[in-house]
Amino acid sequence: VAIDLNSDVGESFGRWQLGDDEAMLAVVNSANVACGFHAGDPTTIASTVSFAASQGVRVGAQVAYRDLAGFGRRFLDVSRTDLTNDVVYQIGALDALAKAAGTKVSYVKPHGALYNAVYTHSEHAAALIDAICSVDPGLPVLGLAGSALLQRASDRGIRTFREGFADRSYQRDGQLVPRTAPGAVLDEDSAVEQGLRLASDPTIDSICVHGDSPGAVQMAVRLRAQLLAAGHELASFV
Amino acid sequence: VAIDLNSDVGESFGRWQLGDDEAMLAVVNSANVACGFHAGDPTTIASTVSFAASQGVRVGAQVAYRDLAGFGRRFLDVSRTDLTNDVVYQIGALDALAKAAGTKVSYVKPHGALYNAVYTHSEHAAALIDAICSVDPGLPVLGLAGSALLQRASDRGIRTFREGFADRSYQRDGQLVPRTAPGAVLDEDSAVEQGLRLASDPTIDSICVHGDSPGAVQMAVRLRAQLLAAGHELASFV
Amino acid sequence: VAIDLNSDVGESFGRWQLGDDEAMLAVVNSANVACGFHAGDPTTIASTVSFAASQGVRVGAQVAYRDLAGFGRRFLDVSRTDLTNDVVYQIGALDALAKAAGTKVSYVKPHGALYNAVYTHSEHAAALIDAICSVDPGLPVLGLAGSALLQRASDRGIRTFREGFADRSYQRDGQLVPRTAPGAVLDEDSAVEQGLRLASDPTIDSICVHGDSPGAVQMAVRLRAQLLAAGHELASFV
Amino acid sequence: VAIDLNSDVGESFGRWQLGDDEAMLAVVNSANVACGFHAGDPTTIASTVSFAASQGVRVGAQVAYRDLAGFGRRFLDVSRTDLTNDVVYQIGALDALAKAAGTKVSYVKPHGALYNAVYTHSEHAAALIDAICSVDPGLPVLGLAGSALLQRASDRGIRTFREGFADRSYQRDGQLVPRTAPGAVLDEDSAVEQGLRLASDPTIDSICVHGDSPGAVQMAVRLRAQLLAAGHELASFV
Repeated sequence: VAIDLNSDVGESFGRWQLGDDEAMLAVVNSANVACGFHAGDPTTIASTVSFAASQGVRVGAQVAYRDLAGFGRRFLDVSRTDLTNDVVYQIGALDALAKAAGTKVSYVKPHGALYNAVYTHSEHAAALIDAICSVDPGLPVLGLAGSALLQRASDRGIRTFREGFADRSYQRDGQLVPRTAPGAVLDEDSAVEQGLRLASDPTIDSICVHGDSPGAVQMAVRLRAQLLAAGHELASFV
Repeated sequence: VAIDLNSDVGESFGRWQLGDDEAMLAVVNSANVACGFHAGDPTTIASTVSFAASQGVRVGAQVAYRDLAGFGRRFLDVSRTDLTNDVVYQIGALDALAKAAGTKVSYVKPHGALYNAVYTHSEHAAALIDAICSVDPGLPVLGLAGSALLQRASDRGIRTFREGFADRSYQRDGQLVPRTAPGAVLDEDSAVEQGLRLASDPTIDSICVHGDSPGAVQMAVRLRAQLLAAGHELASFV
Repeated sequence: VAIDLNSDVGESFGRWQLGDDEAMLAVVNSANVACGFHAGDPTTIASTVSFAASQGVRVGAQVAYRDLAGFGRRFLDVSRTDLTNDVVYQIGALDALAKAAGTKVSYVKPHGALYNAVYTHSEHAAALIDAICSVDPGLPVLGLAGSALLQRASDRGIRTFREGFADRSYQRDGQLVPRTAPGAVLDEDSAVEQGLRLASDPTIDSICVHGDSPGAVQMAVRLRAQLLAAGHELASFV
Repeated sequence: VAIDLNSDVGESFGRWQLGDDEAMLAVVNSANVACGFHAGDPTTIASTVSFAASQGVRVGAQVAYRDLAGFGRRFLDVSRTDLTNDVVYQIGALDALAKAAGTKVSYVKPHGALYNAVYTHSEHAAALIDAICSVDPGLPVLGLAGSALLQRASDRGIRTFREGFADRSYQRDGQLVPRTAPGAVLDEDSAVEQGLRLASDPTIDSICVHGDSPGAVQMAVRLRAQLLAAGHELASFV
C-alpha cells in the first residue's frame, strides 16, 4: 500500500526566503503551496509550482487566514462568507499559476491557525467546504483525522485524506500539541520513528514532513529512505 | 454596428464602499472587476460578479499594481517577471470567483497607473501579454488605441479592443490628460457628447463610462439612452 | 459637571472615504483617530489631526488589531508581546503626525474587536496597558465600565475614563449587543434619549456618538444641542 | 578623526528572518532600523532597538516606500504630500518603540528605491525633508554625497552626513551601480579595501557595511578590525 509524503512549500515572500523548497520537493509526493494570504508572493508561487511540476510532485492549495504579519498562525474570527470567498480567491490564484506551469491544484489543505480551527470550528470548516464546492467539488481535502473539516467534507461528498505529522506531538484527543507548548516539535530521531509508525497506520493517507527547523529536509530525507527500505511505496494520494 | 459600454466595478474593500455597482451594472455591457491588488476584497468581488452574471454583463479582469494604499494609481517599478506573475494571480483569483457565480473572465484591462504605463512602457506591456498568454491566449485585452500594450498584444496574436473614455480629456497624442491636471475630467454634458462621438468612431470598440464623481451613473444612464435613441446597438465586444 | 462627546474619525483609507469627519469634529470634544492598522492612511490621519487641532478637539489613539480587510472588527488571536508592540507602534505613528499638526495624543481607546475583546480578554487588556506604560504612563485610557481593561489600567496606576454609547444597545452585563445582532444599533430618537440619560449618569465620563449610519452626524448634532439646552457643560475628559 | 559604521537592521517581518542583527549590532555604531513599510514588524523593531540600546548603537529611522512585497526596492510614484506623511508616520512609530527601549531615533536614512530616487528626485527629496522638519528639525539625515536629498537638507538647515558603501560599486557620477547590474556588489576583499579608503576620505562621515550576502557580517568584522588597526576611531556621527 502506498503512502504519501507532503510538505508546506512556497512560503517565501518577496525578499524573505523560507525553507529549502527545492530540496523538499525532491523528497515529497505532494506539495502544499502557500497562496499569498499567509505567505507566497506570485513569483515565489510560480517558481514553486514550476519546480513541483518538473519533479512530478502534486500541487495542493494551502489556504489560510489573511494575515501575512502572523504567517496565518493566529486565529482570525472571519465570517463564513468572507472565509469562503477568501479561500476561493486563493485556490483560483494558485491554480492559474499552476496551470501556467503545466500543472494544477489537485487538493486543498488549510494552513496554520485555520488548520487547527477546523478541527472543531464548524463555521470555518463549512466555509472551506463551501469554497471547494464552488471551485470544484472533485477537489479532495487533506486534514486531520477526527476533524470537523473531514467530517463535514464527507457529509458533502468531498473526498477526504487523513494526515499525520512526523515531527509533531499529539494530544490525547488527536489534536496537535500547540507550537507554543513545550515538546510540541519532536527531535529528528523521534520524528523518523513516528513517521514510520504513521506509514503503517491504515487511518493515515499522508505524512506531513514539513518542519520549521533547519533539519526538516534532513528528517524528510531519512524518513523517505527508511520508508522505502521498509518496503513502502511512495505515491501521491491524488 | 454595436458599441460596448464598460465600467470599473468591484472597487470597494472591506468596510469601504466605492461606487454604485448595481446601478452601473444595469447600464453597461462589460464590467472591469477589481482583482484585489488595488481594490476588491474577495467578498466584494463575489457579489460583483454574481450581480454582473445576473444582468448578462461580461466580466473582465481589471488588473493592477499591488498598491491598496494608492488604489493602483501610482506607478510602481516592478520587474517584468513579478508583474507577469502578479497579473496571472489576479486573473486566476477573479476567474475562480466568477466561475463560482456562473460566469468567467472574458477579457483583461489594466487599471490606473498600469493602464497609463502600458501606453509606452514596453516591459510592463510585455508582462501583461505574457500573463495573458500563460493563462489563456484566447483572452482579449481592452486598452487605449495607439498604446504599446495593444501593439504588443497584436504582435503576439492576442485579440485587442480599443477603448475611448466618455468623461476624460485627451492629449494630442491620444493619451489621457492625467487626473491631477486641470480639466482632466469632463462635465456630464460634455461627457455624453464625447460618448456619442466615440460611438460613431470606427476605431473605438468600447466606451468607458466609469467615473469617480457621484454623477457617474447618471452620465452613463443618459449616454446609454442617447446611444439607443441614435440607433446604436449596445453589446459586449466579447 | 462636564460631559465629553467622542467619535471615531480618520477612518478613511487612500481612495476610500468613510464618515464626515469635518462635521463630526465640529460636534465632539474628543476624537478617536484611527492609527493605520484598521483604517487611516498617514495623509488621512494628518488631515484629521490638523482639523481636530483647529477645532480644539482632543486627539486619542484608536488602536486596533492589524486587519485592514476586516476594519479591525474581527478578533485576532495575537500574542501579548506582539499586541503590545503593535499598540506602541500605532500610538507613536499617530503622535508624530499629531505633533506635526500642533497637537498630540491625549488618550488611548481600543477599536472594534479589540474594544470588545478587552472587556474580558486579560492578555489583550494587559498588552494595551503594557503599551501605554511603555509610551507614557500619563496617557489615560477610554473604555467600557466594568471591562478588564479599565480594571487592569487602574491596578497599574493608569487613569481611566468610562464610556457610554448613545446609539448602541447594551446587554444586561454591561457589554454592547454585537453589531451583527438585531437591534444592536438604536434609531436616532432613541439614541438622543439614551445619550441624555448617559450624560446624567455619574459613572460615565464620555459619550460615544460615532455611528456608521448616514445619520450619525445629525444624531450627534441633536444630542449636543439637547445636552447644552439641558444645562450640561461639554468638555473633553482630558 | 572618527569614522562611523552603519548597517540596515530590523529587516525581518513576522515569521521571516533576515540578517544576523545581533552580530551586526556588535560591529556598527549606527543602526538604520526598518520602520514597517518595507520590512520590520513592531516586535522585530522592538527587539532590534532594545539590542541596539544595550550595545550603545545609535538608532536611525530607515524610512521607505510602502511596499512590503517589493522590500521597498521598487520606485513608487507617490505624491509629495503622501510621502511626507508616510515618513512622519514611520519615524513616529519607530521613535515610540525606541523610547520604550530607552533610546530614540537619532537620524533618518532613506531605504532602497527611495534612497536611489532622492539622488535626483526633488519632490521625494523635499518630502523627506518636509517630514524631518515636521517631526524634529534637529534630526540629521544620512545620505549619498551629491544627492538632491543632502543638498535640499542643507538648504533647509537640516544637518547632513555623507555615506559611502564598502561593498557596492559606484558609477562615475557618484551614484551606486544598480543591484541588478553585473558587478554591483563587491567581494569581501574588495569591500574591506574600499571601506579602508572611504574611512580616509574627508567627504565621508559614515560607511555602510550592510550587505545581503551571508558574508556581510564577516566583512563588517574584518573592516572594523582593520580600521582600528589603522588607527581610526569608530564612533557614531550623531
